[in-house]
Amino acid sequence: SNKLNIAVIAGDGIGKEVVPEGLRVLEAAAKRYDLSFDFKEHDFASCDYYGRTGEMLPEDWKTRLEGSDAIFFGAVGWPDVVPDHVSLWGSLLKFRREYDQYVNLRPVRLMPGVPSPLANRAPGDIDFYVVRENTEGEYSSIGGKMYEGTDREIVVQETVISRHGTDRILKFAFELAQSRPAKHLTSATKSNGISITMPYWDERVEEMAKNYGDVKVDKYHIDILTAQFVLNPDWFDVVVGSNLFGDILSDLGPACTGTIGVAPSGNIDPTGRFPSLFEPVHGSAPDIAGKGIANPVGQIWAGAMMLEHLGHKEAADGIVQAIETVLSEQKLRTGDLGGPLGTVDCGKAIADAL
Amino acid sequence: SNKLNIAVIAGDGIGKEVVPEGLRVLEAAAKRYDLSFDFKEHDFASCDYYGRTGEMLPEDWKTRLEGSDAIFFGAVGWPDVVPDHVSLWGSLLKFRREYDQYVNLRPVRLMPGVPSPLANRAPGDIDFYVVRENTEGEYSSIGGKMYEGTDREIVVQETVISRHGTDRILKFAFELAQSRPAKHLTSATKSNGISITMPYWDERVEEMAKNYGDVKVDKYHIDILTAQFVLNPDWFDVVVGSNLFGDILSDLGPACTGTIGVAPSGNIDPTGRFPSLFEPVHGSAPDIAGKGIANPVGQIWAGAMMLEHLGHKEAADGIVQAIETVLSEQKLRTGDLGGPLGTVDCGKAIADAL
Ligand SMILES: CC(C)[C@H](C(=O)O)[C@@H](O)C(=O)O
Ligand SMILES: CC(C)[C@H](C(=O)O)[C@@H](O)C(=O)O
Repeated sequence: SNKLNIAVIAGDGIGKEVVPEGLRVLEAAAKRYDLSFDFKEHDFASCDYYGRTGEMLPEDWKTRLEGSDAIFFGAVGWPDVVPDHVSLWGSLLKFRREYDQYVNLRPVRLMPGVPSPLANRAPGDIDFYVVRENTEGEYSSIGGKMYEGTDREIVVQETVISRHGTDRILKFAFELAQSRPAKHLTSATKSNGISITMPYWDERVEEMAKNYGDVKVDKYHIDILTAQFVLNPDWFDVVVGSNLFGDILSDLGPACTGTIGVAPSGNIDPTGRFPSLFEPVHGSAPDIAGKGIANPVGQIWAGAMMLEHLGHKEAADGIVQAIETVLSEQKLRTGDLGGPLGTVDCGKAIADAL
Repeated sequence: SNKLNIAVIAGDGIGKEVVPEGLRVLEAAAKRYDLSFDFKEHDFASCDYYGRTGEMLPEDWKTRLEGSDAIFFGAVGWPDVVPDHVSLWGSLLKFRREYDQYVNLRPVRLMPGVPSPLANRAPGDIDFYVVRENTEGEYSSIGGKMYEGTDREIVVQETVISRHGTDRILKFAFELAQSRPAKHLTSATKSNGISITMPYWDERVEEMAKNYGDVKVDKYHIDILTAQFVLNPDWFDVVVGSNLFGDILSDLGPACTGTIGVAPSGNIDPTGRFPSLFEPVHGSAPDIAGKGIANPVGQIWAGAMMLEHLGHKEAADGIVQAIETVLSEQKLRTGDLGGPLGTVDCGKAIADAL
C-alpha cells in the first residue's frame, strides 16, 4: 500500500540526532513518490526510558507497536548508565528474537566520494551483502557461573544453532545470491576450531547447496575471511554467517568501504508475520553524541532499505541515488568524511537531492 | 643454554616446504651466534601420518617429545582427506592444551618492502601484539546434538572461560604492555551481545587493571575492533582477546600489514613447565602446496620468536633483521609479495643476510 505506518524509535545518543534526518528524507521521498507515512514515535528502547522506569521496554510493547508496517530504529546504549548487555538484550535483541527477524541484511558498498582505507579501490570494486543469522547462535541466553567468587570460578555460555534457524538463513542467502549476476555465495565458518556447531553449519551449507546448482559456493574460516575482506574485497558477492560472524563481518566490511557511518542494516522477518526493523549499523556513539556531527547517511540508507522491503523499490532507489549524489560532493559531506557539514545539513542536502 | 633440543614437526602442505627454510636460517643463526641445535624431526601431527595410522599422534607422543626445549611447527591440515576439526583437534590444539601453552603471542608489524593493502601506511605505523588466550573459551569440547536427523535438530557448544584462564592471559598481556613504551592495552570483548562470558571477561580486565596503574586500558567490541584495525591500526599496542577473538585479530592484523604469509605465532607456556610451540600464522595452504612458491618468512620469523623465548634475544633480533633486509629488496621476495623467488631461494637469501 502507499500508506505506511512506521514505528519510530530513536533510542540513545546519536540515534536521537540521525533519526530526524532519516524521517526528513523519508518525507521527501513520500512527496516525490506519492507515498504517505504515519510515523508514530516511541520513547522506549532507550536508556532514558530505563532511567525512568527500570525497564527498557514497557510490558505492553507489542500492543504499542501493533499495526506498524516496520520499525525505523536509531541506536541504543549508554554504557555509563546501563550496562550494554542489559540495554541491548532488553530492546534491540528482544525485537530481533520476539519478532523473529531472522535475517540481518547488510549491504557493503564502496560509495562514490567516500575515501576507502584500502589502497587502490574504487566504487564498483566493493559491492556485496552480508547476510547474518539474527536470532540464535553465539548470542544465547543459556549459561552461567560456578564456583562464583573463588579462584576456581568458571563461566559458560552455550552457542545454540538449530536446523530450522540455520536452514532458513541459508535459504535466504542462497536466493539472494541466485538473484545476483555473480551468483556467488561465501559461507563464514570456523569448523577447524569450533568443532561442534561449525561443522554442523558446514553440513547444512553443503546440503542446501544441492538445491541451488547455479550458485557458486565457497567457505572460509572466519579468521582468514576477515583477512580476505581487506586483501580481496572484490571476491565477495553474498557472504552468509552466524550471528557473531555476521556481526563482525558487517562492521569490518563497511570499514573497508570507508566508514561504518554510512552502512544500513535490515532486521527482517521475510515471512511478513512481524514488522521488520531498519537501523544504521553504527551504535549510539556516546563520544560524539550531542554535538550535531554524526553522519546521518547510515540512518537514511536504512530508510531506503525499509522502503524496498515494503515494496517501494523505486523510492528506495531514489534515496540511494540521492545519497550517492551528496556523497560525491565534498562540500555536502559530514566531517568524518572530510566535509564541512553537520548532521542536519547533510540530511537536508540528501532530502534536497531527491 | 647454548645447546638447544628442538622437536621439528613439518605437518602438511606448505608446512613441509617452509620448515626446511626455517631450519636453514636457524642453522645460519647458530653459526653466527655460537649456538648449537639438536633438531629431532617427527612425522606425526600430519594427515599423512593419520592416513597410515588412523591417528594424528602416536599414543606416546609426550614421551617422544620429552627433553625438547621447544617445538618448531609447520602447518597441519589436509581437508580433502581428514576433516579440519579432526586433524587440528588431534594435533595442534592438543599441544596447546596438554602442554598448557596458554599464551598465543602474535606480532603484527608492517615490514619494510611489504606493500600494505591499507592506503598511506608505512613501516612504523603498524606495530603491535595480539595476545590470544590459547587453551579455553570458544574452542571447547563440550556440546552435542539433539533431535538428530529431524527438522527439530539443535546443536549446542559451550564456551567455557575460567578465572584461572582469564587472569593468567590478562596478566601476561598487561605485563607485555607495561614493558612497551606506549603502555597501552586494548581488550577485545563482545559483552553487549555475548551476555554471560563476555561481561565476565570485562570484569576481570577491570580487576586486573588495578594492578597496572601505569597501563592505559581500553576495550572495544570485536565488531568495531575489526573495523578499527583497518581504519586506525596505529591505535594499537597490545591487544588481548579470547581464543576466538584472538584468532580472528591475528589473521586480520597481518592482512593489514600486507600478508599473513610473513606472520609468526608463539604458543607459549610462560611457566616453562612444558615446551612451547612456534609456527607461522598461515595454514597448510593446499591450493599452493607442492609448488615451491610459499613464502617462508612466517616460518623463519617463528624461529626467531623461538630463539627469543629460549633466551637468545640477540640471535632472534639478528634473524628479524635479516628478514627485514631481504623483504626490503624486491628481487629477494617471493611471488606473493611481487618478487621473483621461490620458497627455497628466499630462505637462502635470509640465511645469507645473516
Ligand atoms: C587451524 C586452526 C584450528 C587454528 C586456530 O584457529 O587456532 C589457526 O587458525 C591458528 O590461528 O592457529
Ligand atoms: C549492539 C549490539 C548488540 C549489536 C549486535 O551485536 O548485534 C550491534 O553490534 C549490531 O551489529 O547490530
